Amino acid sequence: MIQVYTSSVIGSSAENIWARIRDFNALPQWHPGIADSRIENGQPSDRVGCIRHFHTGDGGMIRERLLALSDYDYSVTYEILESPMGVDNYVATLKLTPVTDGARCFAEWSAEFDCATLKLTPVTDGVRCFAEWSAEFDCAPGREAELTRAIGQGVFQAGFDALKRTFG
Amino acid sequence: MIQVYTSSVIGSSAENIWARIRDFNALPQWHPGIADSRIENGQPSDRVGCIRHFHTGDGGMIRERLLALSDYDYSVTYEILESPMGVDNYVATLKLTPVTDGARCFAEWSAEFDCATLKLTPVTDGVRCFAEWSAEFDCAPGREAELTRAIGQGVFQAGFDALKRTFG
Amino acid sequence: MIQVYTSSVIGSSAENIWARIRDFNALPQWHPGIADSRIENGQPSDRVGCIRHFHTGDGGMIRERLLALSDYDYSVTYEILESPMGVDNYVATLKLTPVTDGARCFAEWSAEFDCATLKLTPVTDGVRCFAEWSAEFDCAPGREAELTRAIGQGVFQAGFDALKRTFG
Amino acid sequence: MIQVYTSSVIGSSAENIWARIRDFNALPQWHPGIADSRIENGQPSDRVGCIRHFHTGDGGMIRERLLALSDYDYSVTYEILESPMGVDNYVATLKLTPVTDGARCFAEWSAEFDCATLKLTPVTDGVRCFAEWSAEFDCAPGREAELTRAIGQGVFQAGFDALKRTFG
Repeated sequence: MIQVYTSSVIGSSAENIWARIRDFNALPQWHPGIADSRIENGQPSDRVGCIRHFHTGDGGMIRERLLALSDYDYSVTYEILESPMGVDNYVATLKLTPVTDGARCFAEWSAEFDCATLKLTPVTDGVRCFAEWSAEFDCAPGREAELTRAIGQGVFQAGFDALKRTFG
Repeated sequence: MIQVYTSSVIGSSAENIWARIRDFNALPQWHPGIADSRIENGQPSDRVGCIRHFHTGDGGMIRERLLALSDYDYSVTYEILESPMGVDNYVATLKLTPVTDGARCFAEWSAEFDCATLKLTPVTDGVRCFAEWSAEFDCAPGREAELTRAIGQGVFQAGFDALKRTFG
Repeated sequence: MIQVYTSSVIGSSAENIWARIRDFNALPQWHPGIADSRIENGQPSDRVGCIRHFHTGDGGMIRERLLALSDYDYSVTYEILESPMGVDNYVATLKLTPVTDGARCFAEWSAEFDCATLKLTPVTDGVRCFAEWSAEFDCAPGREAELTRAIGQGVFQAGFDALKRTFG
Repeated sequence: MIQVYTSSVIGSSAENIWARIRDFNALPQWHPGIADSRIENGQPSDRVGCIRHFHTGDGGMIRERLLALSDYDYSVTYEILESPMGVDNYVATLKLTPVTDGARCFAEWSAEFDCATLKLTPVTDGVRCFAEWSAEFDCAPGREAELTRAIGQGVFQAGFDALKRTFG
């Protein structure tokens, strides 16, 4: 399991930032890497269990399910159902906490996931030959570093940077 | 602010118990103190922000808003909007945690609230007479003990006991 | 119960700030309101359960017990045993969290306590006279606001401001 | 990173169980797998940062550092410095939570760690020859399952079972 943690300080109140990011369907309105988004089956975007279906700027399709939403502590948790990223058991949480001495908030975005590798394993016994699929949930060291950077910087920090451009 | 904490162990898996209590509109199906319930405006009961409108067995009407719902850690948080209980700023959380050595789960139900006292203050100057409301957020010591018992035992423990009769 | 929460952003890494505030006996080295400090019975200041005995700048004596110390998540929790502040059941936590995009950390200082009022209640029946003590754990509204300001601003924010003057 | 989580219900109050397990040097008094223990350099066993040095029943030597200790929420966190288990970055937490409807407590023991593999990599340039160590932090799938079982069942559950034999 790989863990990624990114945190920042954004120059507006937690209430203001939450009003922007609470909508599970609003990624294209504030994250520069997302081209479009819809909620499957016309569900409300704050219904726990709903699925957002969106595309990244380079055309990749991602489906994510809303696992938890909290107006009480400004947090949202979701899992990836489908993506081209080669990850498994991916669960992420985005959370805001007020900074009480200034109109700022502390923002944290973290994820846990496995690195999926599909491997073809031919098995031969005697005159017959079978092909079987097995799955490994380990990463080559380079692959782990690449995923950590792609998610921590390319997704999470890029989102924070966009919010900071808007909110200061 | 008064804090109430009630915890128990229920004889079925967290998944099973969660399937019963996740529905914010299902109190009458499992809590013995609740007579009926509906979600206002026909909203889905797992939409964060929805309001349940229900009656207790003795006819009291209560409205509560869903503040947070998590399928990830089996928890629900809500606030009271209206009730005959004489509480203010009431926020409660019900949460399940798996017990890994046996088909049981650990259940916690906690609340924080102030004790509201509505006081009629007649004000007279000259020939006119005004009535004003003021509010105190302190409890008489007996009132605090009564609320703690009514909520901790009458609501939370009564709910756990009902689940334990069903699930063992 | 009264809850006070103060948070800030300090311009150095969590490791650096933790090195300064981890020592339960070091308040006079970094908090402007504290004149001196010692650990009772010559105990090490990172031994959970030890008691610090210190004076504020205006001569008030305070004794606090170390309830929890974590080098893992940079947090310290303590309770007040004696103070001139008129509080009861006072437990406070100071905690640092790294900000990953810049050499800064997010600092939180929070407390929960009751407002203690000692009241002499003379009781007379017939020719005899008894004096009894009772205690109330409610505050007059003005007293609650005063305690919240004195602790949240006078103690917690003053400490953060001093760290910010040193660390940027 | 591998995550192991074990939880149970023990038939005595959290205060009682904590009195037994709080002492970082007391493993041999309650855990059946531990033969002896001492704290290095004669430190008190509740001083955060102290190191316990102990042997398992089969003679393995383990050194662990106390990272956090909390009398407030009955929890202890520690890391492995040396062991024969082939793990890296191992951090574990043992925590008790009261069950309010009966003299029982809910006990959780969890760990996160990497699976260490030491690999000899000979490097030759020209006429000279060096041997270098490198480390991989991936597990073969069987190794991960074995570690999860050994720690989750052999260490954590075995400890809970021993407490349950003593406390019911």
